[in-house]
Amino acid sequence: MSKTIKKIGVLTSGGDSPGMNAAIRSVVRTCAFHNIGCVGIYRGYQGMIEGDFKEMGPRSVNNIVNKGGTILKSARSMDFKTPEGREKAHKNLVKAGIDALVVIGGDGSFTGALLFNSEYDFPVMGIPGTIDNDIYGTSYTLGYDTALNTVVEVIDKIRDTASSHNRLFLIEVMGRDAGHIALNAGIGAGAEEILIPEEDLGLDRLLDSLRKSKAAGKSSSIVVISEGDKIGKTVFELKDYVESNFPEYDVRVSVLGHMQRGGAPSCFDRVLASRLGVKAVESLLEGESNYMVGILADKIVLTPLEQAIKGDSEIDTELLRVSDIMSI
Amino acid sequence: MSKTIKKIGVLTSGGDSPGMNAAIRSVVRTCAFHNIGCVGIYRGYQGMIEGDFKEMGPRSVNNIVNKGGTILKSARSMDFKTPEGREKAHKNLVKAGIDALVVIGGDGSFTGALLFNSEYDFPVMGIPGTIDNDIYGTSYTLGYDTALNTVVEVIDKIRDTASSHNRLFLIEVMGRDAGHIALNAGIGAGAEEILIPEEDLGLDRLLDSLRKSKAAGKSSSIVVISEGDKIGKTVFELKDYVESNFPEYDVRVSVLGHMQRGGAPSCFDRVLASRLGVKAVESLLEGESNYMVGILADKIVLTPLEQAIKGDSEIDTELLRVSDIMSI
Amino acid sequence: MSKTIKKIGVLTSGGDSPGMNAAIRSVVRTCAFHNIGCVGIYRGYQGMIEGDFKEMGPRSVNNIVNKGGTILKSARSMDFKTPEGREKAHKNLVKAGIDALVVIGGDGSFTGALLFNSEYDFPVMGIPGTIDNDIYGTSYTLGYDTALNTVVEVIDKIRDTASSHNRLFLIEVMGRDAGHIALNAGIGAGAEEILIPEEDLGLDRLLDSLRKSKAAGKSSSIVVISEGDKIGKTVFELKDYVESNFPEYDVRVSVLGHMQRGGAPSCFDRVLASRLGVKAVESLLEGESNYMVGILADKIVLTPLEQAIKGDSEIDTELLRVSDIMSI
Amino acid sequence: MSKTIKKIGVLTSGGDSPGMNAAIRSVVRTCAFHNIGCVGIYRGYQGMIEGDFKEMGPRSVNNIVNKGGTILKSARSMDFKTPEGREKAHKNLVKAGIDALVVIGGDGSFTGALLFNSEYDFPVMGIPGTIDNDIYGTSYTLGYDTALNTVVEVIDKIRDTASSHNRLFLIEVMGRDAGHIALNAGIGAGAEEILIPEEDLGLDRLLDSLRKSKAAGKSSSIVVISEGDKIGKTVFELKDYVESNFPEYDVRVSVLGHMQRGGAPSCFDRVLASRLGVKAVESLLEGESNYMVGILADKIVLTPLEQAIKGDSEIDTELLRVSDIMSI
Repeated sequence: MSKTIKKIGVLTSGGDSPGMNAAIRSVVRTCAFHNIGCVGIYRGYQGMIEGDFKEMGPRSVNNIVNKGGTILKSARSMDFKTPEGREKAHKNLVKAGIDALVVIGGDGSFTGALLFNSEYDFPVMGIPGTIDNDIYGTSYTLGYDTALNTVVEVIDKIRDTASSHNRLFLIEVMGRDAGHIALNAGIGAGAEEILIPEEDLGLDRLLDSLRKSKAAGKSSSIVVISEGDKIGKTVFELKDYVESNFPEYDVRVSVLGHMQRGGAPSCFDRVLASRLGVKAVESLLEGESNYMVGILADKIVLTPLEQAIKGDSEIDTELLRVSDIMSI
Repeated sequence: MSKTIKKIGVLTSGGDSPGMNAAIRSVVRTCAFHNIGCVGIYRGYQGMIEGDFKEMGPRSVNNIVNKGGTILKSARSMDFKTPEGREKAHKNLVKAGIDALVVIGGDGSFTGALLFNSEYDFPVMGIPGTIDNDIYGTSYTLGYDTALNTVVEVIDKIRDTASSHNRLFLIEVMGRDAGHIALNAGIGAGAEEILIPEEDLGLDRLLDSLRKSKAAGKSSSIVVISEGDKIGKTVFELKDYVESNFPEYDVRVSVLGHMQRGGAPSCFDRVLASRLGVKAVESLLEGESNYMVGILADKIVLTPLEQAIKGDSEIDTELLRVSDIMSI
Repeated sequence: MSKTIKKIGVLTSGGDSPGMNAAIRSVVRTCAFHNIGCVGIYRGYQGMIEGDFKEMGPRSVNNIVNKGGTILKSARSMDFKTPEGREKAHKNLVKAGIDALVVIGGDGSFTGALLFNSEYDFPVMGIPGTIDNDIYGTSYTLGYDTALNTVVEVIDKIRDTASSHNRLFLIEVMGRDAGHIALNAGIGAGAEEILIPEEDLGLDRLLDSLRKSKAAGKSSSIVVISEGDKIGKTVFELKDYVESNFPEYDVRVSVLGHMQRGGAPSCFDRVLASRLGVKAVESLLEGESNYMVGILADKIVLTPLEQAIKGDSEIDTELLRVSDIMSI
Repeated sequence: MSKTIKKIGVLTSGGDSPGMNAAIRSVVRTCAFHNIGCVGIYRGYQGMIEGDFKEMGPRSVNNIVNKGGTILKSARSMDFKTPEGREKAHKNLVKAGIDALVVIGGDGSFTGALLFNSEYDFPVMGIPGTIDNDIYGTSYTLGYDTALNTVVEVIDKIRDTASSHNRLFLIEVMGRDAGHIALNAGIGAGAEEILIPEEDLGLDRLLDSLRKSKAAGKSSSIVVISEGDKIGKTVFELKDYVESNFPEYDVRVSVLGHMQRGGAPSCFDRVLASRLGVKAVESLLEGESNYMVGILADKIVLTPLEQAIKGDSEIDTELLRVSDIMSI
């Protein structure tokens, strides 16, 4: 059915995440292992349209397994949303002899890949790269484990100063649509309360929880808040609200921001990236297309891109209960 | 069937691992959540025999979720291997009003727990704490993820100096019976070759692999070796062997040793510890005994202690293949 | 002149900083070494007024050399600004048999110590503990070196994502009155531009510098801003200003905040804390009072508290030049 | 006197150390700042002989300020010890239009530079790069501060497991001729005893100290040993000796090894490297030669290379006393 693949293009798209470089390395070396060519496409779909390509061999990816960011860079492309842009991109791929694509990114990147495939019957395979862990079809996205470690390490530092001063800290972490980071890093950092988009805890519950904390003899408190929490307040408004209801607390805010996207990937993310890269290339070589490679129940599996895009990555409600018990 | 449990004892036994403190904290706070007592038993089974106990409430475990080691300390106990020792231990537990035990440790610790249960019908529940990840019935043991990060971070540093000098480094990591650390950290650190106890790669294969590395234009090489690798040579003998067969290489040895057991636990280990502690206590309260709580396919599950002790935690052979491809 | 000192009180006051615990440990152990008593005073001057004291021996400070924050906690005390408060504090000290004080903190803490000494002729010795490095009479304050490492490590992570996306990051670091952190961490992190309170670079200069950066082929830019920079704009206003003058840049803001105060102290801060603690106690024992111990030209020296408070800790203008050259 | 310098060569030689890349970057950019050329010479003097050169501009050194190792690589050169080798090297420099050299390395590298200067009247300037801090004329060598942090972080981890098991750890750190690392990292890590080459403490003193430790109620002990300590025993012989005299201790050995040379440089090392690079280039441009740039009493200064080579970098005996007091 599928013609023989002789050269694979690889790109990173959307927000970068730790482990993307390890995945690029894996794609490049798996191509070399199977004696097929590999081309790095710079700046995502935009570079595809502009023909910003570079042939890559196994030595092109030396010493990047432990580097954050993406050596192929990433960008959002308006042009790729137009038929003209995609046509230009397709011509460039054909001209460069590229037969198939590995797209490392999130929902939006996969949507572009699927559309491109539907128009040009071009084989595509997705690798989930985002720190938010909000993609259906994989228990872990690339970069998520690293981001969790970054967050708990920072909160460990903030707790040093929080305990020295009996302060309440409101810490905003990334995760606009999904509370995975807040929930897991919150438990990991021993937060007294965790606010996530998926559950409307309500402000009363937060105040109640802080009152209990104080009554329980805790001398300081950490509240971890997902940037997209359902309360709908910014973390600064929340500070005002807590202070007016809880004048005895000295409330401070910390917005962790973009540091969460960077840093050397954890061992978990490096190994996961290596495994996903192998599977992505070998699946293409076996004639598969339109799948995302992911890890479910400890196994590397394929999920149709369409499902990956539409499905929801649900919060484990067991963890909410664990969090409640831990903050007793 | 089982009488009501009013007080649970918790101990750590065997080699310590990061996450043990987070598990102790979880056991203590889950007890408090269910309004039952909790007693910390110091120095494992030896402290049980000596009555080295301390009542613990939720504030006894403040600020330990991120600490390496174990606040309850650990020790190997010869006395517990004697019927007299176990009798003394049982009397101490009864005297202190302890109705059930949570044992955090590895194979040996679980064997002791099972024996103690068979003699005194005393409810016991195990939590797998060891960096080696060599326990059947759980995909991850407490401390394993942290140890992997420690190892890759150290190898990242060694690679800096290896690449600056075109050197070959033989790096010995922990794992006497299981190559999980060597295999995963080896892939994570981008090792050229990985030697593990489960697979007899043979010295010829190692030399062959090093030759390929050099031919492929790699300027330095990292070989990760499990302390129990089947070749049966110490890492220092291996150095001599490689140097005599491969005179162009400047070979250096690094034995990582006990630093692998310490350090602040990763977020993964902290969350896992919290979840396992909740499940261990609640399973005892539901009348269960003689199980180990673990994580399989992303879910917290119970495995009979007997199986956990006897079963083998097998290496994922897919990873050996990934390693081969990555080191092309 | 001075009566024999038999018991020394130690407190931490003002904002906490990494190394304060190592300094407490040093004070406690130096007292033990000289066979005199040592009393920990909790929550700074407020605890002195409330008699919140604890006798401390060498084992009270086990395993804290590497801990951030302060085990004695810190607080600002309004009461100590009143004669009544200080009288109460003095009575408590006398009652507890405390003959002399070591005060670990910054300018404000030293001012309180000096006033207390002038009123009660009570021997006091200061140790400079603040991350801002803004104290005259010492090249390094406790915690400053650690804070610099924290900042460059975070900016290293932000640079990963900045380079992946060709973004401009405005990063606000601590230092309300002094630009030491911004200037040194800015050079260390390879910032394109550094804005500090001591030098009014002006907005035009910033825009000019960013233009040069882009012309020089730099694909991303990091600007480090001291919270008290003289331009007088908040970092968010600065973002708007840059974006309106420089539409081609995608500007992001990161306010590092309180994480800069926490974390395990660097080796430098631990050793400095140990040395300063020894000198503070031994100077008191030798009959000295009203000095701050500090490090100047690699030597531990005494500076009159009055000078330490009034003097300015000046920015090394050589570093401004180095920064300009590095960001070519 | 000196002819105008139009192009400077830069090389790293001897053992690598963190901060070398930051120094290379500084040399390259300072050359660009002054509109003169800069050539990177690979693999130290060996690359000079083989003509392994590369022109470097400010963008050649992007994103290396935070990288361990040396992008110019290092090697020991036998050939450079011969007049023929040096003649070849000189011809290559002349051919490439290189007028002056910046040599980043230690004693041996400076000796070569001085000899080369004496034979060919070629302007040379040294930058001290070694983790051992054993060079006269500078309070800090590049990489030393980073190595101290690496060592204390590792010992912090080992202490976790040491305290959990009441063990004695003998930890060997680098420093063949100088005990700076052992002494400072030992104090920083809270070691009970420190053995360094400069002071013959004697084995009896060690045993005595361990006895006191135990009597003082310490549950675990850390002894830090410089690889070149005067007792003249390897750390493994020391283990046997301690165990036979101190059977109650469970003694473990850890040899930290080459990880001490790698890793991202600390902020201190990055700033120092930047300052030294500027000074080295500008001193050459001002007509100076045969100096090492270093930092003394917080100022960047020049020391004649001859003195830097011959002088001893002495241990601060105050620190020995601090160590004794801290381990009470």
